[in-house]
Amino acid sequence: MKKLRVGIVGVTGYSGLVLLEILLSHPGVDITFASAGSTTGEIADIWPQLKGKTSLICEEYSEQKIIQSCDAVFLAVPHTVAMQYVPALITAGITVIDLSGDYRLNDEAEYKKWYKAGHSDIKNLSKAIYGLPELYRDSIKSANLISNPGCYPTAAILALAPIIKNLSSDIDSIVIDAKSGVTGAGRKAHTSLLYSEVNENFKAYKVFAHQHSPEIDLYLADIAKGKIKTTFVTHLLPMNRGILETIYVKFKSPKKQTSIRDLYEQMYKAEPFVRLLEAGSQPETKHVAGTNYCDLAIESNDDGSMYVVTTVIDNLMKGASGQAVQNMNIRFGYSEQEGLI
Amino acid sequence: MKKLRVGIVGVTGYSGLVLLEILLSHPGVDITFASAGSTTGEIADIWPQLKGKTSLICEEYSEQKIIQSCDAVFLAVPHTVAMQYVPALITAGITVIDLSGDYRLNDEAEYKKWYKAGHSDIKNLSKAIYGLPELYRDSIKSANLISNPGCYPTAAILALAPIIKNLSSDIDSIVIDAKSGVTGAGRKAHTSLLYSEVNENFKAYKVFAHQHSPEIDLYLADIAKGKIKTTFVTHLLPMNRGILETIYVKFKSPKKQTSIRDLYEQMYKAEPFVRLLEAGSQPETKHVAGTNYCDLAIESNDDGSMYVVTTVIDNLMKGASGQAVQNMNIRFGYSEQEGLI
Amino acid sequence: MKKLRVGIVGVTGYSGLVLLEILLSHPGVDITFASAGSTTGEIADIWPQLKGKTSLICEEYSEQKIIQSCDAVFLAVPHTVAMQYVPALITAGITVIDLSGDYRLNDEAEYKKWYKAGHSDIKNLSKAIYGLPELYRDSIKSANLISNPGCYPTAAILALAPIIKNLSSDIDSIVIDAKSGVTGAGRKAHTSLLYSEVNENFKAYKVFAHQHSPEIDLYLADIAKGKIKTTFVTHLLPMNRGILETIYVKFKSPKKQTSIRDLYEQMYKAEPFVRLLEAGSQPETKHVAGTNYCDLAIESNDDGSMYVVTTVIDNLMKGASGQAVQNMNIRFGYSEQEGLI
Amino acid sequence: MKKLRVGIVGVTGYSGLVLLEILLSHPGVDITFASAGSTTGEIADIWPQLKGKTSLICEEYSEQKIIQSCDAVFLAVPHTVAMQYVPALITAGITVIDLSGDYRLNDEAEYKKWYKAGHSDIKNLSKAIYGLPELYRDSIKSANLISNPGCYPTAAILALAPIIKNLSSDIDSIVIDAKSGVTGAGRKAHTSLLYSEVNENFKAYKVFAHQHSPEIDLYLADIAKGKIKTTFVTHLLPMNRGILETIYVKFKSPKKQTSIRDLYEQMYKAEPFVRLLEAGSQPETKHVAGTNYCDLAIESNDDGSMYVVTTVIDNLMKGASGQAVQNMNIRFGYSEQEGLI
Repeated sequence: MKKLRVGIVGVTGYSGLVLLEILLSHPGVDITFASAGSTTGEIADIWPQLKGKTSLICEEYSEQKIIQSCDAVFLAVPHTVAMQYVPALITAGITVIDLSGDYRLNDEAEYKKWYKAGHSDIKNLSKAIYGLPELYRDSIKSANLISNPGCYPTAAILALAPIIKNLSSDIDSIVIDAKSGVTGAGRKAHTSLLYSEVNENFKAYKVFAHQHSPEIDLYLADIAKGKIKTTFVTHLLPMNRGILETIYVKFKSPKKQTSIRDLYEQMYKAEPFVRLLEAGSQPETKHVAGTNYCDLAIESNDDGSMYVVTTVIDNLMKGASGQAVQNMNIRFGYSEQEGLI
Repeated sequence: MKKLRVGIVGVTGYSGLVLLEILLSHPGVDITFASAGSTTGEIADIWPQLKGKTSLICEEYSEQKIIQSCDAVFLAVPHTVAMQYVPALITAGITVIDLSGDYRLNDEAEYKKWYKAGHSDIKNLSKAIYGLPELYRDSIKSANLISNPGCYPTAAILALAPIIKNLSSDIDSIVIDAKSGVTGAGRKAHTSLLYSEVNENFKAYKVFAHQHSPEIDLYLADIAKGKIKTTFVTHLLPMNRGILETIYVKFKSPKKQTSIRDLYEQMYKAEPFVRLLEAGSQPETKHVAGTNYCDLAIESNDDGSMYVVTTVIDNLMKGASGQAVQNMNIRFGYSEQEGLI
Repeated sequence: MKKLRVGIVGVTGYSGLVLLEILLSHPGVDITFASAGSTTGEIADIWPQLKGKTSLICEEYSEQKIIQSCDAVFLAVPHTVAMQYVPALITAGITVIDLSGDYRLNDEAEYKKWYKAGHSDIKNLSKAIYGLPELYRDSIKSANLISNPGCYPTAAILALAPIIKNLSSDIDSIVIDAKSGVTGAGRKAHTSLLYSEVNENFKAYKVFAHQHSPEIDLYLADIAKGKIKTTFVTHLLPMNRGILETIYVKFKSPKKQTSIRDLYEQMYKAEPFVRLLEAGSQPETKHVAGTNYCDLAIESNDDGSMYVVTTVIDNLMKGASGQAVQNMNIRFGYSEQEGLI
Repeated sequence: MKKLRVGIVGVTGYSGLVLLEILLSHPGVDITFASAGSTTGEIADIWPQLKGKTSLICEEYSEQKIIQSCDAVFLAVPHTVAMQYVPALITAGITVIDLSGDYRLNDEAEYKKWYKAGHSDIKNLSKAIYGLPELYRDSIKSANLISNPGCYPTAAILALAPIIKNLSSDIDSIVIDAKSGVTGAGRKAHTSLLYSEVNENFKAYKVFAHQHSPEIDLYLADIAKGKIKTTFVTHLLPMNRGILETIYVKFKSPKKQTSIRDLYEQMYKAEPFVRLLEAGSQPETKHVAGTNYCDLAIESNDDGSMYVVTTVIDNLMKGASGQAVQNMNIRFGYSEQEGLI
């Protein structure tokens, strides 16, 4: 079988590294293009861990080269950058999997409000398919532009979907207390991300102002077929990889724990990357580190009016690059787990 | 002025170490007794960091020696141990500051439910004064048995007191999402506390089952003059020291942020160890590491119906030994900040 | 092709976990037996990260079951345990790859001196093949008992072999300053290995008393065809995985750096798992984390009399389980990199 | 007694923070000036941990203000910056304690070679007193310009001084394998110092090229009254604070361990900040964290020809700001331990 030719734009970031790691081992793929802003040179010099595994070269971004050499391209770039590349690539028939936030919201005003920037590709904004396979698998199969979900929304939406889908009108309130390892912030030389600042420290950030908040509410609303408003607060963990979200669902009236569990089992029993833990077990970020799994646990208070759903993912895998490859697998007819297990 | 003679029972734990560190520098105190289970020998051998600072000896526990040589004693021991020592010490006129959980709840059945053990000193259970100075300062001044608060409850109660005191009937629900560094679990050789297990990992634990949950609700109820039921979930942070709690208060009707801030400023403006951060700032555990401070920040959603109060303490200082010394200072007429700033 | 049937004894330790991870993905292997002291039950309950990947059961150790169901067995057990299992397994024709220290030294007295225990299987002590493929590949091909090298010796011997082989008579002295992450100490519930003790701490341990010291000197002597005495000091790093050794080779007379580099290039140019870094680059433990690579760099002082060789491995991969599988691949005719890249 | 008026230049770095922490609690000192490049504003906003402890303002650097308001000034600035300030301050009679590397070497050419910059104040280069109290206490008492030692040299020189002073002609070679926490690199927004890069990683850096190498050799030579050449390699530890150096001294002929210990006991028995550990104990960085201590241990091989001296300091205390205050105490007649214990 002819291999899929893929490009990666943004190979010097952590998502870029993980894409390289996965795709270099993926039996159905050839990486035919790699770039990263103004950085050029051998990938094995940029990422010494890949020495001996690839002779790939990081070159300047070239639309023409991508069009000539790629069937699909991953954009692992900052927001506002992806939207500059997408229109021409799509037009040329390249399938784009965008890991930035540029095509996750479907409304120009919302984008501007949360990303503090205008959007230059409104045409594609509403056409992009949200790349959360557990919910949008069918649409992904034929998508030309896949908007890979944010790390926090991936965990939040998977954790809430069974309840939202079946019981949205019974919900009184939802609080999502989210904690992420440092790679979630990217690889930027900011003082606040220095080892000496983050180590032995913990804090909340962007309270009521995180750009993933509208993304969560948007897709939960799509599931609920109605408006959903969550309270979402993010925190920075002194560790590299991993997200845990502790989600508090208060119901208007008590629910039986077995019924709630049933909703999760029903929705996820056939999913290759969602693992529902047995009652009494709690997920730990290390159990999904380096994997594409999302682990979930459900507990309730005595009367069943308050449920606590805890969920973990590896922010660079199911929260970014792993999910991007899962989407690629779906889009191009590979086994969904190929290269990911 | 004659120095206060104090004993420390439990010097081999982390609270014991911090008590030693604070009290060795406290100008008004002589440490006249130290013990720790079956461990004996020079403190400077047990804690090499104290070499050159003390010639204190760790000896076997001796009621008689404490009675002869101490005015006050700190019990930094596991729960169920303190209750064995307290009755005789109190009877002998020794002031006891108990850092264990043995005298925090006021009800035998509740103790049994949450601590999974019977209580052998019911007589003193209801007499103990809860050593949270910001709320019970006057009672502490003449207390014979001070029950030093749990680390999580200290942060939670300080963060909620202004709202609970003034607006308890307007509250719809309270969620307390709490995260603690590892020293909060003590110094026990459990596999789950190994470096290789905790590092690069994050998890929730004791969901709906933490013994600090009833303690929080009990003292909030005392402030509210009515029943309070919070939802409280704890997590283990990959760091040594520090607690952060993200507290979600949903009101029945919207409140103005300035009014809420006023309640905090009013209650804490004269408090030496509570710092209210300016709007827009978030507390970080490192800002209180090694100090007795509790830092607080308040944010609300757009319509003022949901407030997020974030609070940090050092679990071994304001959450344990620092607060214990603060209580000692109050009880024995020292400046409240003596040895703590 | 019929799959190789392998057993793993000691699946609850970190080496056991990594063996499971590698072998579950190895296309030529079926794991047909797993045990771990008195622990029994589903592997996926013992290691939740493997949930969904295996239905393997951890059972009690059974010589008979191994003999019936396995072609080869990995012993990932503490020293003194392996020697109890080896004789019967070897006799029954099972190929044993022993990750403990029991068969690394070739002399009963030396074993007793460094491991503080008698040796009950002297017969096999001298017959075991030292499983360092870069030096003993040919012997490994037909070995019945492969003694998998210690983590520190693997890095030290690979870093020194080119010099020792060619210039041993020119060496004045060798200092090996070794640093290891915490998983190197195993998964034992000791207070000294608690997160709260190891985090934000660094120390040397077992100075002049580490059991890997005679192992290093023994195999260097084998390469040199003469006696070698190194000075070897170990340290505990506050991290999970990785060993770095800084090795100081003082020559009796200056050497040209290009000549020394040539020795390394010659010895390792065809090795799949040894990477010689370019001059000016230094190896980092993260560049080999999760891999079977050993990275090496060479620097010298101005006159060429002192060389500093730095080397890194992942202590659980090339330092234990990765190398064990590399040995299995060699012994049973698989590609040496199968399952490891 | 009138308080000493001191200024701190460079309050936004980690040394600056620790100077603030120490001096705010020092009973004999008033901080009368603070600056840090172009940063201005309240210290309590720059360092929230100091909120409630000081109302000090960080202002622009002003020679005139310092001259008017200070008796002494600490320069906690990058190298090449200190030399721009020193001449005028010295001329105006201000005592300068310089924490940068600008006045540690005594030779313009050496400075240029190692610091890659010209020196603009050659006049004072040879006049500065090296602020290592254990060796130069008498000169410090009347110094106008105190060059505070580098962090690595402080540990190395204290660890080697007893041997160098008494046995320098018997030494065959010295290897100093040094490891430092991340705060030693300062508070610069470099990618290589990001949490996500440093965490779970370990590496050597500046092999044969660290600017502290000539500083160590220079002052060891001063002690030896003869040339000393050490081999010095530095490494970056994944932790915030602490230096450990493992020092290998090879003697030309064997020495008795008791004789070597005697040299250390003799030299350090009256030193308030040097602690010699008992045989069999090893120093740990956490035992000196936050203190001005230097802990030392000595071990030897069987025949006494190779000694391993291990030494730890807190790089921000004895390795920088603590030692700077120790120097201030000596210079201005305070108890040497004032504010430091």
